[in-house]
Amino acid sequence: MLYTGNMETFFTFLERRVDDCASLLCIGLDPHVSDIPFPTAAAARDFCLRLVKATAPYAAAFKPNAAFFEVFGAEGWDALKQVIEAVAEESARLGSTIPVILDAKRGDIASTAEAYAKSAFENLGVHAITLSPYLGKDSIDPFLAYKEKGVFLLCKTSNPGAGDLQDLLVKPQTSEVLKTSEVYAPLYIHVAKLAQRWNSGDNIGLVVGATQPEALRRVRAAAPELWFLVPGVGAQGGDLAAALRSGLR
Amino acid sequence: MLYTGNMETFFTFLERRVDDCASLLCIGLDPHVSDIPFPTAAAARDFCLRLVKATAPYAAAFKPNAAFFEVFGAEGWDALKQVIEAVAEESARLGSTIPVILDAKRGDIASTAEAYAKSAFENLGVHAITLSPYLGKDSIDPFLAYKEKGVFLLCKTSNPGAGDLQDLLVKPQTSEVLKTSEVYAPLYIHVAKLAQRWNSGDNIGLVVGATQPEALRRVRAAAPELWFLVPGVGAQGGDLAAALRSGLR
Repeated sequence: MLYTGNMETFFTFLERRVDDCASLLCIGLDPHVSDIPFPTAAAARDFCLRLVKATAPYAAAFKPNAAFFEVFGAEGWDALKQVIEAVAEESARLGSTIPVILDAKRGDIASTAEAYAKSAFENLGVHAITLSPYLGKDSIDPFLAYKEKGVFLLCKTSNPGAGDLQDLLVKPQTSEVLKTSEVYAPLYIHVAKLAQRWNSGDNIGLVVGATQPEALRRVRAAAPELWFLVPGVGAQGGDLAAALRSGLR
Repeated sequence: MLYTGNMETFFTFLERRVDDCASLLCIGLDPHVSDIPFPTAAAARDFCLRLVKATAPYAAAFKPNAAFFEVFGAEGWDALKQVIEAVAEESARLGSTIPVILDAKRGDIASTAEAYAKSAFENLGVHAITLSPYLGKDSIDPFLAYKEKGVFLLCKTSNPGAGDLQDLLVKPQTSEVLKTSEVYAPLYIHVAKLAQRWNSGDNIGLVVGATQPEALRRVRAAAPELWFLVPGVGAQGGDLAAALRSGLR
């Protein structure tokens, strides 16, 4: 059955939440083993539940990191589900739904990508997910098929090894969308332009690290309309004001 | 504590198994919902247990796909663990340990990558994992730190969208290792050369699709020493003889 109603996209939903809470803050839910009293799924869950409760009024979104739950196996998976449900409960209490972005960085094809999408969007019930672009458009499509959900593609990350692939200069493309005045453009700029082109359903954003404002500025120029998920402010050394100056639409 | 004994690397282990079973066949454990009688974790597990039992004597390795278990949440995670344990039991029965490669295509950094590595190598107990290279060397290092385990980096995949990034022509690098006689080389060749350079611990292989023998040949030339994991023979249309001609060391 084709849904033809006035469906809200993820980014319209996110904008409403941003208005409601007057904040652009995405709060990571990263229960590192070193930050919890016991290395158990229950301790990871309780750490996140406390954080959700304390910060919900200020959260434009929550971003649980799949790895820190997956490391506890089946119990971790249940804990992740409980954390996501807790965000829904706080949302109901506040009268404003807070989006949940699963930080999973999945990247696979065909029926495998469909299974990852079903896992995130149907079983866990998150509103958006982070994905790797290395396998190309058809690895993203099974996620985009959920038209009310969102994806954030890895574009330019803030780790030292990001340059191994992301900064490589790629030959200018002949297609209209990708042509550029630069002789060569870094791979991450190419990814930004691809994402801008693929965003016909208003459901693609980009992950761009906060630690390099100049890269943020270049990605913003390449993808003027897209939402950015910008990790790295604080502990990783990113400067909030500089990131906002470079990255805001 | 630094382990200084005569540790066996993953690839030495794999070679021994290849000798024992006189086969290079890696058997995928992909319990698609469409292939199982009920969409449950138990049905996915039983499908894989039957496959493991029927094919163990001929398997150089088994490759369970994380997505088809993750889609069943906590129960799926338990099912995956049981399937991996079943391979260990068949190995004991045969008197020859069969490697298990977790097809998870993870790609993240720092403590997140450490958690994914711990999940795969310690909790699930697999011998190797597939990873995405988009975030660079430091996203691979937490896995390489397990010196007796292996990683297979995505290099050239067989899906239609592979070309969106992997085939992009990259400007020649000035470093000795990466320089090339070609004016431009595709990104996947760059990845192959990086993997060859990073393989100082004999624990890195490459994922190269079977459907494009010419790409296989080029990757083999760029990374003469690495093991390839070559999906795509059979249903996806890859020709076994052509893949072997192009990919064998």
